[in-house]
Amino acid sequence: MFKRLALLSATFMFVLAAGAQETKKFMLVIHGGAGTINRKNMTPEREREYRAALEQALRTGQAVLARGGSSLDAVEATVRFMEDSPLFNAGKGAVFTHEGRNELDAAIMDGKTRKAGSVAGVTIIKNPISAARAVMEKSKHVMMAGRGAELFATKMGLEIVDPSYFWTERRWKALQDELLKEQQPQASLVTADENRFGTVGAVALDQSGNLAAATSTGGTTNKMYGRIGDSPIIGAGTYADNETCAVSATGAGEFFIRWTVSYDIAALMKYRGLSVQEAADQVVNKTLKAVPGAEGGVIALDRNGNFATPFNSEGMYRGWIGVDGVPHVEIYRD
Amino acid sequence: MFKRLALLSATFMFVLAAGAQETKKFMLVIHGGAGTINRKNMTPEREREYRAALEQALRTGQAVLARGGSSLDAVEATVRFMEDSPLFNAGKGAVFTHEGRNELDAAIMDGKTRKAGSVAGVTIIKNPISAARAVMEKSKHVMMAGRGAELFATKMGLEIVDPSYFWTERRWKALQDELLKEQQPQASLVTADENRFGTVGAVALDQSGNLAAATSTGGTTNKMYGRIGDSPIIGAGTYADNETCAVSATGAGEFFIRWTVSYDIAALMKYRGLSVQEAADQVVNKTLKAVPGAEGGVIALDRNGNFATPFNSEGMYRGWIGVDGVPHVEIYRD
Repeated sequence: MFKRLALLSATFMFVLAAGAQETKKFMLVIHGGAGTINRKNMTPEREREYRAALEQALRTGQAVLARGGSSLDAVEATVRFMEDSPLFNAGKGAVFTHEGRNELDAAIMDGKTRKAGSVAGVTIIKNPISAARAVMEKSKHVMMAGRGAELFATKMGLEIVDPSYFWTERRWKALQDELLKEQQPQASLVTADENRFGTVGAVALDQSGNLAAATSTGGTTNKMYGRIGDSPIIGAGTYADNETCAVSATGAGEFFIRWTVSYDIAALMKYRGLSVQEAADQVVNKTLKAVPGAEGGVIALDRNGNFATPFNSEGMYRGWIGVDGVPHVEIYRD
Repeated sequence: MFKRLALLSATFMFVLAAGAQETKKFMLVIHGGAGTINRKNMTPEREREYRAALEQALRTGQAVLARGGSSLDAVEATVRFMEDSPLFNAGKGAVFTHEGRNELDAAIMDGKTRKAGSVAGVTIIKNPISAARAVMEKSKHVMMAGRGAELFATKMGLEIVDPSYFWTERRWKALQDELLKEQQPQASLVTADENRFGTVGAVALDQSGNLAAATSTGGTTNKMYGRIGDSPIIGAGTYADNETCAVSATGAGEFFIRWTVSYDIAALMKYRGLSVQEAADQVVNKTLKAVPGAEGGVIALDRNGNFATPFNSEGMYRGWIGVDGVPHVEIYRD
């Protein structure tokens, strides 16, 4: 009897070990925007909604990685989920331009090949991140904007929607507040400042050791018609190469463009030998922190699964999930 | 008599010395595109035209710098001159998209403040570089595309032209050749490959020690409607900060975006301590050279007036001019 149990136990251990060998390390890190996000501005109900959506986003990408899928597939699936959620400033739930339109930007980058794709100022593509991927994989270009990008996405068979699909009452009110503010700068309007900007993003490491990054956004409330932010700019809001790291940024985009934020983190790792945590911290909490208005944060992940989620704003919606399948979500600084 | 001559001579020397003290070091470096530019493809007449235009462009910017003007004013004036010349792929003389349109991109960056402005996919602005400067100085944004950028430029009082202004027979023929090539890949058409891409750019150091960079382009012949290249992307085709260098790039833009070429040169100077020549050479002749198709070059200038003009293509239209006012122009590798 004891012998049999020992044999059974040994067999069981063997199966476990074999299983563990097959599942190599993988990691997914996400953000849902940074800004004036604090407990004072948050209702318990809204916090629950955000936590649930972030956890679901993490599980969506984790499922791809757990079955051996690519980091590209994982970040695309994760960002698509957040684009479809009205909670985040990307896809459905995007903020409005000054003229009351939704103009969407997105980018994706493959750390293995350093291939990249992005779209800017698109208004009828349900999931801009998938359009960015189509630009990367099915065109000879990296970046496409406006009507040209929309015609390409349509030809590629991506889901097209009426611009009204992106309308949400919360973002429409945020624009009206901003417009009123412009006219009455002295008025003390209760504006949810967290609405001014926001972005969603994901970085992933897959079981083959490849990194990828994806970012999608509606930009900033009250932005001018035609404005392009940092999200669709490779090296600014989105970057990935296996040699260094995968990065997705969120914040006051104009500063993130001028400081080439995402690639600066990679350059500090490559040329100064900094860890991903040190490099991301230096760019967000030293370089950008010293520039008035350069508010925001990043998620950054290296090839060994080390990651950082620094932000210099009050809060940042963020989370991560690994092989154990347990989603971790954080919102505030403390 | 001898005494009088000596006195006169001494006075003359004093005046010269005082003049020299007042005029501090300044420098202007330009490019007019890189590609398959060699003596075999060039007629003596065309070479004379290019040399004359490049010299005139240099003198245009030098005049600004010599009278104590800013590097920003110098690079804008220089690029405007090249945009107005039908010889270069920028402004008048821009290449055509697949659909037979001219979609123009441009960017400018101020090394002192790290402020930047850019426009992409504009079709009616006579001088896109001035629109980029208006975005930098008169909007809250860095990058604007398409119709939104055009409306902004119109409101700012910039010169608007009919799209037909940009039409040139030479570029139209280049598009027809490319379209034919697509249909008959085996046909041995005599296409001027130098027409495929091209860009104009200028980097300058002014007497106050401030750097600036400007780039303008029509993109690549036969590009898709809506495609954005590296020129208007800060950190890819255009970059400047006083701490490191000013850079303007020209080449196969998609690669220059993926390799964040302009900022990579700055990062090598900042984080590795390389000189501007070493950094520019490493990025163009090592990093990009190792990537099939990543053809092109850059001009890069540091705060001490040191500069580099590396290219990994057959040729690059380029030139420089300093305090002595003598324009230097080169086209080929040897």
